[in-house]
Amino acid sequence: MPTLSRPSFEAAVEAARKSMSTGGIPIGAALERNGELRATGHNQRFQQGDPTAHGEIDCIRAAGRQSTYTDTVLYTTLAPCAMCAGTIIQFKIPTVVVGESSTFPGELDLLRSRGVEVIVLNDERCAELMQDFQRAQPELWAEDIGELAENQPNHLT
Amino acid sequence: MPTLSRPSFEAAVEAARKSMSTGGIPIGAALERNGELRATGHNQRFQQGDPTAHGEIDCIRAAGRQSTYTDTVLYTTLAPCAMCAGTIIQFKIPTVVVGESSTFPGELDLLRSRGVEVIVLNDERCAELMQDFQRAQPELWAEDIGELAENQPNHLT
Repeated sequence: MPTLSRPSFEAAVEAARKSMSTGGIPIGAALERNGELRATGHNQRFQQGDPTAHGEIDCIRAAGRQSTYTDTVLYTTLAPCAMCAGTIIQFKIPTVVVGESSTFPGELDLLRSRGVEVIVLNDERCAELMQDFQRAQPELWAEDIGELAENQPNHLT
Repeated sequence: MPTLSRPSFEAAVEAARKSMSTGGIPIGAALERNGELRATGHNQRFQQGDPTAHGEIDCIRAAGRQSTYTDTVLYTTLAPCAMCAGTIIQFKIPTVVVGESSTFPGELDLLRSRGVEVIVLNDERCAELMQDFQRAQPELWAEDIGELAENQPNHLT
């Protein structure tokens, strides 16, 4: 197990809080190389109207082009969905540190089946952030995980 | 099998060609709802310096927020990678039409294992576009699929 960097995880939590404070979904991420924070990101569905901008995607986008990710660790406040798990697999990120998986199970088994090391911290602050958000904005959350009722208008924007 | 829309597939091919003509990776995509083209996109790693902007991601981003994708078809010129396959699974896109899978096998089995209908057209134009590109810019292609030699500098930008 790699040494966990609390500063990088805290940067992901801070990004999640920043997203919540600007009306968005409180999921944050951080990318670290050799123990050094390289980039952060947070879910931008609300702020940018971009359904692909989950926290992990926004973070990897912010880091820009890299020749390899095999020496990186990705921190995320919530268990990665299929899109983000697929991204971790595609980019060959070897280790993912997950704040919590109690409010959304994510695709941790898919990650492990492809050889990704998954460390779940069971961080109560991350779970509380998500619980507060899910209560306050259930439709935005349902939209983000593709479970909005189908009788909604097709085009939200 | 749904009726295939040649105009939407042709729009994906056109987007791939546009990407090639601007120095980028020639992979294009199109999102269709009820037989109507809604958005197109192409790989933007080179043009925008965005490693997450594969053709499918760029296309879904261009379509903006949607309440559901269960009535959509995604067209793509090349077999989706793990990131894009995960996105298709996460967004519950039921059908993916793939131009070709000979130059890159992608994650077609993962898609099928999650219930996604995958139709491969074996389109020779798409294969030729990729072959031309892989010959002309082997390092950019290796970077896009996470296989650049590890002795390259870590930070490309």
